[in-house]
Amino acid sequence: MTQQAIVLFAHGARDPEWALPARRIAAEVQQLRPAATVILAFLEFMEPTLVDAVEAAAASGATDVRVVPLFLAQGGHLKRDVPVLMEAVRTKHPECHIELALAVGEDEGVVRAMAAYSAGV
Amino acid sequence: MTQQAIVLFAHGARDPEWALPARRIAAEVQQLRPAATVILAFLEFMEPTLVDAVEAAAASGATDVRVVPLFLAQGGHLKRDVPVLMEAVRTKHPECHIELALAVGEDEGVVRAMAAYSAGV
Repeated sequence: MTQQAIVLFAHGARDPEWALPARRIAAEVQQLRPAATVILAFLEFMEPTLVDAVEAAAASGATDVRVVPLFLAQGGHLKRDVPVLMEAVRTKHPECHIELALAVGEDEGVVRAMAAYSAGV
Repeated sequence: MTQQAIVLFAHGARDPEWALPARRIAAEVQQLRPAATVILAFLEFMEPTLVDAVEAAAASGATDVRVVPLFLAQGGHLKRDVPVLMEAVRTKHPECHIELALAVGEDEGVVRAMAAYSAGV
Protein backbone atom coordinates (compact mmCIF):
# COMPACT_ATOMS: atom_id res chain seq x y z
CA MET A 1 0.00 0.00 0.00
CA THR A 2 1.20 3.51 -0.75
CA GLN A 3 2.04 5.48 2.33
CA GLN A 4 1.85 9.18 1.61
CA ALA A 5 3.71 12.07 3.16
CA ILE A 6 2.98 15.74 2.58
CA VAL A 7 5.89 18.10 3.18
CA LEU A 8 4.86 21.74 3.46
CA PHE A 9 7.86 23.85 2.53
CA ALA A 10 7.93 27.43 3.80
CA HIS A 11 10.56 30.16 3.62
CA GLY A 12 11.21 30.55 7.33
CA ALA A 13 12.12 33.71 9.25
CA ARG A 14 14.06 34.78 12.34
CA ASP A 15 10.85 35.53 14.25
CA PRO A 16 9.37 32.28 15.68
CA GLU A 17 5.85 33.74 15.36
CA TRP A 18 6.32 33.84 11.61
CA ALA A 19 5.70 30.10 11.45
CA LEU A 20 2.29 30.18 13.17
CA PRO A 21 0.11 30.40 10.01
CA ALA A 22 2.20 27.63 8.41
CA ARG A 23 1.61 25.47 11.50
CA ARG A 24 -2.14 26.15 11.23
CA ILE A 25 -1.99 25.02 7.59
CA ALA A 26 -0.08 21.87 8.57
CA ALA A 27 -2.64 21.05 11.29
CA GLU A 28 -5.50 21.51 8.81
CA VAL A 29 -3.76 19.33 6.19
CA GLN A 30 -3.34 16.62 8.84
CA GLN A 31 -7.07 16.79 9.59
CA LEU A 32 -7.89 16.52 5.89
CA ARG A 33 -5.47 13.62 5.40
CA PRO A 34 -5.33 11.75 8.73
CA ALA A 35 -3.45 8.77 7.25
CA ALA A 36 -0.67 10.87 5.74
CA THR A 37 2.55 11.95 7.43
CA VAL A 38 2.49 15.77 7.40
CA ILE A 39 5.75 17.63 7.99
CA LEU A 40 6.47 21.37 7.90
CA ALA A 41 9.93 22.23 6.54
CA PHE A 42 11.82 25.45 5.91
CA LEU A 43 14.27 26.95 3.44
CA GLU A 44 16.13 29.01 6.02
CA PHE A 45 16.19 30.27 9.62
CA MET A 46 13.96 27.42 10.85
CA GLU A 47 14.12 23.63 11.01
CA PRO A 48 13.73 20.97 9.75
CA THR A 49 15.19 21.57 6.30
CA LEU A 50 13.46 20.17 3.22
CA VAL A 51 16.06 17.41 2.96
CA ASP A 52 15.63 16.46 6.63
CA ALA A 53 11.84 16.43 6.23
CA VAL A 54 11.95 14.14 3.19
CA GLU A 55 14.42 11.88 5.04
CA ALA A 56 12.01 11.70 7.98
CA ALA A 57 9.11 10.93 5.62
CA ALA A 58 11.07 8.13 3.92
CA ALA A 59 12.17 6.80 7.31
CA SER A 60 8.53 6.71 8.42
CA GLY A 61 7.80 4.40 5.48
CA ALA A 62 6.37 6.91 3.02
CA THR A 63 6.64 5.80 -0.60
CA ASP A 64 4.91 8.83 -2.02
CA VAL A 65 5.98 12.32 -0.95
CA ARG A 66 4.20 15.49 -2.05
CA VAL A 67 6.27 18.63 -1.47
CA VAL A 68 4.10 21.76 -1.44
CA PRO A 69 5.83 25.16 -1.40
CA LEU A 70 4.04 27.59 0.92
CA PHE A 71 5.16 30.47 -1.28
CA LEU A 72 3.14 33.13 -3.07
CA ALA A 73 4.88 32.43 -6.36
CA GLN A 74 7.73 30.66 -8.12
CA GLY A 75 10.68 32.96 -7.52
CA GLY A 76 14.40 32.30 -7.48
CA HIS A 77 14.19 29.99 -4.46
CA LEU A 78 11.72 27.66 -6.12
CA LYS A 79 13.24 27.86 -9.59
CA ARG A 80 16.88 27.44 -8.60
CA ASP A 81 17.38 26.22 -5.02
CA VAL A 82 14.53 23.74 -4.67
CA PRO A 83 15.19 21.64 -7.84
CA VAL A 84 18.73 21.02 -6.55
CA LEU A 85 17.36 19.86 -3.19
CA MET A 86 14.73 17.69 -4.92
CA GLU A 87 17.37 16.05 -7.11
CA ALA A 88 19.43 15.26 -4.02
CA VAL A 89 16.57 13.62 -2.12
CA ARG A 90 15.34 11.70 -5.19
CA THR A 91 18.81 10.26 -5.74
CA LYS A 92 19.04 9.25 -2.10
CA HIS A 93 15.54 7.73 -2.01
CA PRO A 94 14.87 6.01 -5.34
CA GLU A 95 12.17 3.93 -3.58
CA CYS A 96 10.10 7.08 -3.04
CA HIS A 97 8.02 8.91 -5.59
CA ILE A 98 8.75 12.55 -4.72
CA GLU A 99 6.57 15.14 -6.40
CA LEU A 100 7.05 18.91 -6.26
CA ALA A 101 3.73 20.76 -6.43
CA LEU A 102 3.33 24.30 -7.71
CA ALA A 103 3.49 27.03 -5.07
CA VAL A 104 0.25 27.47 -3.11
CA GLY A 105 -0.10 30.99 -4.50
CA GLU A 106 -0.48 29.54 -8.02
CA ASP A 107 -3.63 27.64 -7.03
CA GLU A 108 -6.91 29.14 -8.21
CA GLY A 109 -8.69 28.41 -4.92
CA VAL A 110 -5.92 30.13 -2.97
CA VAL A 111 -5.97 33.13 -5.33
CA ARG A 112 -9.75 33.42 -4.85
CA ALA A 113 -9.45 33.20 -1.05
CA MET A 114 -6.68 35.82 -0.97
CA ALA A 115 -8.72 38.09 -3.23
CA ALA A 116 -11.85 37.74 -1.08
CA TYR A 117 -9.89 38.60 2.07
CA SER A 118 -8.10 41.49 0.36
CA ALA A 119 -11.38 42.89 -0.94
CA GLY A 120 -12.84 42.71 2.55
CA VAL A 121 -15.89 40.79 1.31
CA MET B 1 -18.86 59.76 -0.32
CA THR B 2 -16.00 57.56 0.74
CA GLN B 3 -13.76 56.56 -2.11
CA GLN B 4 -11.91 53.37 -1.28
CA ALA B 5 -8.54 52.14 -2.45
CA ILE B 6 -7.10 48.69 -1.82
CA VAL B 7 -3.32 48.44 -1.91
CA LEU B 8 -2.03 44.89 -2.17
CA PHE B 9 1.47 44.84 -0.75
CA ALA B 10 3.75 41.99 -1.85
CA HIS B 11 7.41 41.26 -1.18
CA GLY B 12 8.68 41.46 -4.75
CA ALA B 13 11.47 39.47 -6.40
CA ARG B 14 14.07 39.83 -9.13
CA ASP B 15 12.16 37.47 -11.43
CA PRO B 16 9.31 39.35 -13.19
CA GLU B 17 7.24 36.13 -13.30
CA TRP B 18 7.16 36.14 -9.52
CA ALA B 19 4.51 38.87 -9.61
CA LEU B 20 2.03 36.92 -11.77
CA PRO B 21 -0.03 35.36 -8.92
CA ALA B 22 -0.14 38.76 -7.18
CA ARG B 23 -1.42 40.31 -10.41
CA ARG B 24 -4.12 37.61 -10.62
CA ILE B 25 -5.15 38.46 -7.05
CA ALA B 26 -5.27 42.18 -7.90
CA ALA B 27 -7.43 41.50 -10.97
CA GLU B 28 -9.82 39.39 -8.90
CA VAL B 29 -10.03 42.05 -6.16
CA GLN B 30 -10.87 44.63 -8.83
CA GLN B 31 -13.69 42.39 -10.08
CA LEU B 32 -15.03 41.98 -6.54
CA ARG B 33 -14.79 45.73 -5.84
CA PRO B 34 -15.28 47.48 -9.19
CA ALA B 35 -15.68 50.93 -7.60
CA ALA B 36 -12.41 50.74 -5.65
CA THR B 37 -8.95 51.76 -6.82
CA VAL B 38 -6.84 48.59 -6.66
CA ILE B 39 -3.05 48.95 -6.71
CA LEU B 40 -0.35 46.31 -6.37
CA ALA B 41 2.77 47.52 -4.52
CA PHE B 42 6.06 45.91 -3.49
CA LEU B 43 8.55 45.99 -0.63
CA GLU B 44 11.58 45.48 -2.86
CA PHE B 45 12.84 44.63 -6.37
CA MET B 46 9.58 45.75 -8.02
CA GLU B 47 7.57 48.94 -8.31
CA PRO B 48 5.57 50.85 -7.22
CA THR B 49 6.61 51.05 -3.58
CA LEU B 50 4.00 51.07 -0.83
CA VAL B 51 4.48 54.81 -0.34
CA ASP B 52 4.08 55.51 -4.07
CA ALA B 53 0.95 53.35 -4.18
CA VAL B 54 -0.69 55.16 -1.27
CA GLU B 55 0.27 58.49 -2.85
CA ALA B 56 -1.38 57.39 -6.08
CA ALA B 57 -4.48 56.27 -4.19
CA ALA B 58 -4.73 59.60 -2.38
CA ALA B 59 -4.15 61.49 -5.61
CA SER B 60 -6.99 59.53 -7.20
CA GLY B 61 -9.30 60.88 -4.49
CA ALA B 62 -9.36 57.88 -2.16
CA THR B 63 -10.26 58.79 1.43
CA ASP B 64 -10.13 55.25 2.71
CA VAL B 65 -7.10 53.05 1.95
CA ARG B 66 -6.89 49.38 2.93
CA VAL B 67 -3.35 48.03 2.76
CA VAL B 68 -3.30 44.23 2.56
CA PRO B 69 0.05 42.43 2.92
CA LEU B 70 0.30 39.51 0.49
CA PHE B 71 2.55 37.69 2.93
CA LEU B 72 2.20 34.29 4.54
CA ALA B 73 2.75 35.72 8.00
CA GLN B 74 3.81 38.71 10.06
CA GLY B 75 7.60 38.54 9.97
CA GLY B 76 10.22 41.21 10.42
CA HIS B 77 9.15 43.12 7.29
CA LEU B 78 5.59 43.53 8.50
CA LYS B 79 6.45 44.10 12.16
CA ARG B 80 9.30 46.57 11.64
CA ASP B 81 9.48 48.00 8.12
CA VAL B 82 5.81 48.44 7.29
CA PRO B 83 4.72 50.38 10.42
CA VAL B 84 7.40 52.97 9.59
CA LEU B 85 6.08 53.29 6.03
CA MET B 86 2.49 53.48 7.28
CA GLU B 87 3.39 56.24 9.75
CA ALA B 88 5.02 58.20 6.94
CA VAL B 89 2.03 58.00 4.60
CA ARG B 90 -0.48 58.73 7.38
CA THR B 91 1.43 61.87 8.35
CA LYS B 92 1.53 62.97 4.74
CA HIS B 93 -2.17 62.23 4.10
CA PRO B 94 -4.14 63.12 7.23
CA GLU B 95 -7.27 63.35 5.03
CA CYS B 96 -7.05 59.61 4.34
CA HIS B 97 -8.03 56.80 6.67
CA ILE B 98 -5.25 54.30 6.06
CA GLU B 99 -5.76 50.84 7.54
CA LEU B 100 -3.19 48.04 7.63
CA ALA B 101 -4.84 44.62 7.43
CA LEU B 102 -3.33 41.43 8.79
CA ALA B 103 -1.28 39.39 6.32
CA VAL B 104 -3.39 37.28 3.95
CA GLY B 105 -1.84 34.13 5.43
CA GLU B 106 -3.45 34.95 8.79
CA ASP B 107 -6.94 34.75 7.30
CA GLU B 108 -8.90 31.59 8.11
CA GLY B 109 -10.32 31.31 4.59
CA VAL B 110 -6.83 31.57 3.09
CA VAL B 111 -5.47 28.99 5.55
CA ARG B 112 -8.31 26.61 4.57
CA ALA B 113 -7.67 27.13 0.84
CA MET B 114 -3.91 26.57 1.25
CA ALA B 115 -4.58 23.44 3.31
CA ALA B 116 -7.02 22.03 0.74
CA TYR B 117 -4.51 22.59 -2.06
CA SER B 118 -1.64 21.17 -0.01
CA ALA B 119 -3.66 18.08 0.89
CA GLY B 120 -4.49 17.55 -2.79
CA VAL B 121 -8.21 17.31 -2.02
